[in-house]
Order: sequence, then structure tokens, then C-alpha cells
Amino acid sequence: MKRFHVVGIGNAMVDVLSHADDQFLAVNGVGKGIMQLVDAERAVELYARIGPAREVSGGSAANTIAGVAALGGRTAYVGKVKDDQLGAIFAHDLRAQGAVFETPKAPKSAAFETGRCIVLVTPDGERSMNTYLGASETLGPEDIDVETMAATEWTYLEGYRFDGPDSHAAFAKAIAATKGAGGRVALTLSDPFCVERHRAAFRAMILAEVDLLFANRAELVAMYGGSFEAAMQAAAAEVGMVAATDSENGVHVLVNGDHSHVPAVETRVVDATGAGDLFAGAFLWGLNHGHAPEVCARMGNLAASEVIGHIGARPEADLRRLFGAQGLL
Amino acid sequence: MKRFHVVGIGNAMVDVLSHADDQFLAVNGVGKGIMQLVDAERAVELYARIGPAREVSGGSAANTIAGVAALGGRTAYVGKVKDDQLGAIFAHDLRAQGAVFETPKAPKSAAFETGRCIVLVTPDGERSMNTYLGASETLGPEDIDVETMAATEWTYLEGYRFDGPDSHAAFAKAIAATKGAGGRVALTLSDPFCVERHRAAFRAMILAEVDLLFANRAELVAMYGGSFEAAMQAAAAEVGMVAATDSENGVHVLVNGDHSHVPAVETRVVDATGAGDLFAGAFLWGLNHGHAPEVCARMGNLAASEVIGHIGARPEADLRRLFGAQGLL
Repeated sequence: MKRFHVVGIGNAMVDVLSHADDQFLAVNGVGKGIMQLVDAERAVELYARIGPAREVSGGSAANTIAGVAALGGRTAYVGKVKDDQLGAIFAHDLRAQGAVFETPKAPKSAAFETGRCIVLVTPDGERSMNTYLGASETLGPEDIDVETMAATEWTYLEGYRFDGPDSHAAFAKAIAATKGAGGRVALTLSDPFCVERHRAAFRAMILAEVDLLFANRAELVAMYGGSFEAAMQAAAAEVGMVAATDSENGVHVLVNGDHSHVPAVETRVVDATGAGDLFAGAFLWGLNHGHAPEVCARMGNLAASEVIGHIGARPEADLRRLFGAQGLL
Repeated sequence: MKRFHVVGIGNAMVDVLSHADDQFLAVNGVGKGIMQLVDAERAVELYARIGPAREVSGGSAANTIAGVAALGGRTAYVGKVKDDQLGAIFAHDLRAQGAVFETPKAPKSAAFETGRCIVLVTPDGERSMNTYLGASETLGPEDIDVETMAATEWTYLEGYRFDGPDSHAAFAKAIAATKGAGGRVALTLSDPFCVERHRAAFRAMILAEVDLLFANRAELVAMYGGSFEAAMQAAAAEVGMVAATDSENGVHVLVNGDHSHVPAVETRVVDATGAGDLFAGAFLWGLNHGHAPEVCARMGNLAASEVIGHIGARPEADLRRLFGAQGLL
């Protein structure tokens, strides 16, 4: 038995959650429903304009790992924060959820701060994300502990983490350690604009290393072109397992030529932040516990429905109780 | 017309909100339903033990001022944070709500950090507060801007702020400026244990300066002894106006010999944090807008019911819309 079910690598972020209407987004040049990178200056400027906010630990892969931990999985996270107050908050929240988090922090003397994401939630529950990468951008190969990466069944890579100078070298080191010890690699494409920025690198990694691909409709179409259906087939031709989410239309799972569809859980959308992250966490937890991919997709949808129902991208309800009530434990 | 309806003085805090059960409180020596002061070491130790948390600006008087601002009142806050990330969050959230906040921050070099309050919410909605005062304890007379204090109809003093070496001198300076310009002074007793620590100072201030006293049942009984009824009568003999809250049993308002009772708004208690603070904010806003004390109490109850219905001590719904729907604007 390996020490970890899943180790995730991503951008370590604290989310700054606030409400805004479509007009605010338009006036302030915030693209709706996407993740946009902002520099420190823009982050400060935008923060000064938004309403009162609350701070909750986030980061896409970190949310996924929090989901794995909430389900009782053995899991660790790799990502970079600074030794500052937000970094302490991020570390606390992951560890308190039961995940291992041992990536060295950037020192107090660093010129940047812990990364944060200003998430503006519109009345329709859609989230528009403005990410200041800060410390998270500096994750490099020296931060990858090969023992940890060799000790996991799955390594889960966040597409967002392709931004940043040393990220590709960090990923390569992590993948080599995991695969060298018989583990497998999952990748999420994260965001259509992220696909635009890193299409070639994504493609190379998918062809050479990826055993499981997570993507939503927009990301898959951005990656492969054509219709959603065509993009799914193209992805399935390259990766052994593809989980393609399509919001309220449910999830398609493609495994070695088989294509199944699992409907979404009906729920009121309060804040869509973290839906895809929790889907991936529960899906991976399911695979680790020997469930068929369709059952894993059902688990993913259930976990996503929990996080959609409240503000914030980490689970608040007892996921194990929720899964137990559905006969999924 | 004065520049401000209300200026509040209190302990500037960021709340660290997490869930816990009664057993956790017992095992970790946390007194249920009260505010307990903790030093930096205990704050770190307790934080390491609690579950994932979220950070929301708090501070009793600051919540009150946020409520006044949310209702459209002209309002300012006086309290001390450090020039650190939590201090920036606190300042942002107050200003974004529409309040003026200009108290100089303690410098980055200070040995302490911005104050925080670890709020543990039990399944019954009760909150148990563990306050590390940090920077807030250092508010002194040099932080009191007499122009601001002279420019307000009401100065609202937080009982918690009686902790700390220079607080009494700061209050004296603020009161002199407000009263010298024809303004009035309101005080909240904050907490029964706070009354135990500062009974003599509270009493002296009540007799000499206070025009309006806010207290809940436990605080009033701690202050005056005897039954709730007897304590209310004793308070009314010393202060022109007393607003005595009694949780779900509503509010008693005593004005120059008249005693009226206003029932609470029925609501599901998710998190009681901030109920008294928002009551005071809406009550003061009502007085400023020429309403009778009983109507002000109704306003206070309505604002309290909003903040009780969600996690966090600042209003989330549009208070003006809520008040408008009840014909209270």
C-alpha cells in the first residue's frame, strides 16, 4: 500500500470572495466566468474597488486535495506560499482537513506575497477569477520531494500551474518519480484560456504521461477544436481515461473506447467555484477505492453539488456522511 | 448637520470562523458562549487544533459601524490594526462597506500582529470567542482624532476596548471631544466577563458620560446584580436610555421611566456572532433618523436577524432592501 492515494500539485491561493454584478465586471474589465492572471498592482487596484470580502483557502488542486482528505483519503499537496499571514491560513486549512502539506514556504524577505484570487460571484452563481500568482509562481523542481511523489497512487497536476518559469521542470521531476514507482498521472486542463497559453506543453504531456484527463466542455473544445463530441473522441484517442464535465448537463466518461454519461446532481448554484475541483477529488478517491469510472463520476457530481451550494471552494458539509446517505461508501 | 451619525471605537479584529462541537470546547478548555482573551501563544496553539476556517472582518464595534454604513448612515471607525495582511483585510472591508477608517496602523516592525478572534460555532449556533488582541490593544489617545470625534452625533464605545493600557485615556479624549461639540455617547457592556474585569470603570463612565446603554441580560445582571428586571431598573435610574437585549425573548427599551418590550424577529440561528453588534448599529441609525426608541429596537432586531442567519458578523443581505420591505425606511 502506498502512503498516498493522491498528491496534487498546483497554485497555492487564498480566495478573496466577494459579490459583484455584471455591470461591475464590465466597468472594471473583468472577464466573466474565466480565470485571468493579474499582476500585484492590478490586484491591489481591483481589491480597492470590490465590496466587503471574505477569505477562504482555495487553489484548484488544493481544493481537490481538500476533497480527497474530506472523504478520508490519504493525500498531500505541493504548492508554494510565502511565510506570511495568508500563507499560514492556507497551510492551516489544508492540514486541518487532513492533508499533508510540507512544501517549503518562500521566506519573509521575498518581494512577493502569498498568491490570492479575487473571486467575484455574480447573482447567477458564476465566478470570475482574478489571480495574483505571487509565491505560487515560484514553485520549482527544488520543491518537489521525490519520496513523496514516488509514494502516491496518483499525481494530480493542475493546468494553471503551467504558468510560471520553473513549473514544467517541477512537473517533469514529479512525474518521473511517480511513474518510476508505478504510480499514475492525472491532469486537469483548468481553463480554456490556460489551454490557449499552454496548448503545446499540455499536448506533449498528455501524449507522453497522462493516464486520466479532467476537462470541462470549453477546455476540451479549446484543446482539440471542433464540437464537444469530436473533442471528447480526440481526447479519448490519446488518453486511457477522460472525464469531461458539462456543468448541469452532467459528465461524460470515456474509458478505452467506452463512452458513458452520468447526469449531474440537481442543485441550486450559489457559487460555482470549486465544482470541477471537487469533482476531480471525489473521482480520484473513487478510483482509489476500486469503483468503476461511472460510479466515480457519480461521486464527483455529488461532491461538486455540495461545494456549489455555498460560497467557497472547499467542502463544508460532511462529505462522508453525504456519500454514506447515497450508498457510496 | 454633523459629518457623522455614529463613530465607533473598539478592538479591530479579523474573525477566524470555524465549526466545533461541545466536546472540542471542553477538551480544549474553551468557555462556551463567551469571549475569552488569549495570548499569542495560546492563539497559535488553538488555531493549530481547529478545523478549516474562513476569515471575515469582525470586531464588535466595527460590526456595528458596518451595519450603520450598510443602512446608508454616515459613519467612521476608530481602532488599531497592524500594517500586515490581516490589517489590510480589515481596513478594506470597512471602507468597502462605506465607513471611514483612518486610524494609523501599527508599523510592520511591531512585535505583535493584527488582532484576531478565533470564533468556534457549535451546532446550536452559539459562538465561543478566543480573542488575541494584538495591535488593537495598543490604541491610545494619540490615535483619537478630536476633529472626527467632534463631528459625530453619537460616539459608540465598545466595552471590550476597556482591556488595554491606554484605552481609558483614549476613551476620555474621545468623549470630551464628542460631548464638547454637543454629541452623545453610547456604550455597550460587550460581555459579562468584561463587566467583571471593568465594573468600576464602566460604572464611572455610565454615571458621568453615557446617554445610551446597550447590554444583554447576562451583562446587565453582571453589572447591577439581582434579577434581569431589577438590573434594568437600576440601569434606567442611571442612564437616560437603556436597550436591554434578551436573545429570542426580544428587547426591552427603557427611556426616562417608560419601559417597552419589542419581540425578536423569528429566525433560524446559524451563527449568533454579531447579533448584538448589528442590533446596536440599526438602533443608532434609527435614532439618527428621528425614529422612536421602540421603532429603533424593531430595526435593531431586524438587522440582528439578518446576521444571525449566516456565518459571519457583518451584514450580507441588502439591509436597506430588508428595511424597505418592512416599511422601516
